[in-house]
Amino acid sequence: MRELKEKILEEGVVLSDDILKVDSFLNQQIDVELISKMGKEFAEHFKDRKIDKVFTVESSGIAPALATASELGVKCVFGRKKQSLTTSEDVYHSSVFSFTKQVMNELIVNKEFINEGENVLMIDDFLANGQAAKGMIAIIRQAGANPVGCGIVIEKSFSNGRKLIEDMDVEVYSLARIAKLEDGNIEFAE
Amino acid sequence: MRELKEKILEEGVVLSDDILKVDSFLNQQIDVELISKMGKEFAEHFKDRKIDKVFTVESSGIAPALATASELGVKCVFGRKKQSLTTSEDVYHSSVFSFTKQVMNELIVNKEFINEGENVLMIDDFLANGQAAKGMIAIIRQAGANPVGCGIVIEKSFSNGRKLIEDMDVEVYSLARIAKLEDGNIEFAE
Repeated sequence: MRELKEKILEEGVVLSDDILKVDSFLNQQIDVELISKMGKEFAEHFKDRKIDKVFTVESSGIAPALATASELGVKCVFGRKKQSLTTSEDVYHSSVFSFTKQVMNELIVNKEFINEGENVLMIDDFLANGQAAKGMIAIIRQAGANPVGCGIVIEKSFSNGRKLIEDMDVEVYSLARIAKLEDGNIEFAE
Repeated sequence: MRELKEKILEEGVVLSDDILKVDSFLNQQIDVELISKMGKEFAEHFKDRKIDKVFTVESSGIAPALATASELGVKCVFGRKKQSLTTSEDVYHSSVFSFTKQVMNELIVNKEFINEGENVLMIDDFLANGQAAKGMIAIIRQAGANPVGCGIVIEKSFSNGRKLIEDMDVEVYSLARIAKLEDGNIEFAE
């Protein structure tokens, strides 16, 4: 997605060879126009897959997931990273290690929101090691639903996330693929 | 907002005299059509206030904030509840006690995303004790920006949040006001 790549080059900050900061349009400040275009792009790519629901993880996945759900005319569900007082006991959960934050999170979704037989499209802001997507797939499969694809805003192609997810028989579709972060520079994979 | 009140009556679950669970359309599963209407309603109400930015707190505020920002054609910023590895040192912060989760959170926003002189509209899912809104107002004022209003999806009018925020000279506009939660029943304030 050309506009996204341009935005990454304009505003992305390479913090290390692993970490790209895109807080100015995706992770803390949200460029609603660009997010809306991302939603259209994901919806167009997955339009023949009869998507019943869009699934993401709080917080940074919510904006692109919502834009996609809006285009597809389906509901959006976000997994929570820890149990809250209002979360029912009746939940699906899986463990997800966050390399960015160096913590183990519990990904939790109320059972009533992912149903047997539903075609579920996952959307997330980043794909690196694939832990969040793997956790979402585990939950979708616990529910007897179908993980029909994984839409990613920014893929770190130098990590092994894509292989992990594809090995679970789930398609990965990324709007921008980064081959390398080095000396403050960003090199795209394609 | 009539449709919201109907949805609350249809799908809201009264967990106690304090806690209303609306996970099925606002807090975990998002009804994108209803959220979009909320955004239109907030945008219409605040349209003469020259809003430069919409500000919310992760995670449940993001969806209505994004819908509002989209209608107003401005950017949306969400405060984070704890410091992450990619958060710059250069942040505004304030402490916010969450009665729902019974924890003290640190509300953090990168300084670059709230600027001096900006008119900032706050949006949040719930207003009860007003702690989150108070924390947002503190951050907006630290930045030298103007908190021009606080748009709330569901206000618990039996709590003191509205008075707290109005005493800080900030307008509160709620889409649904709940007077009482009792014996599993929901009574609206108007």
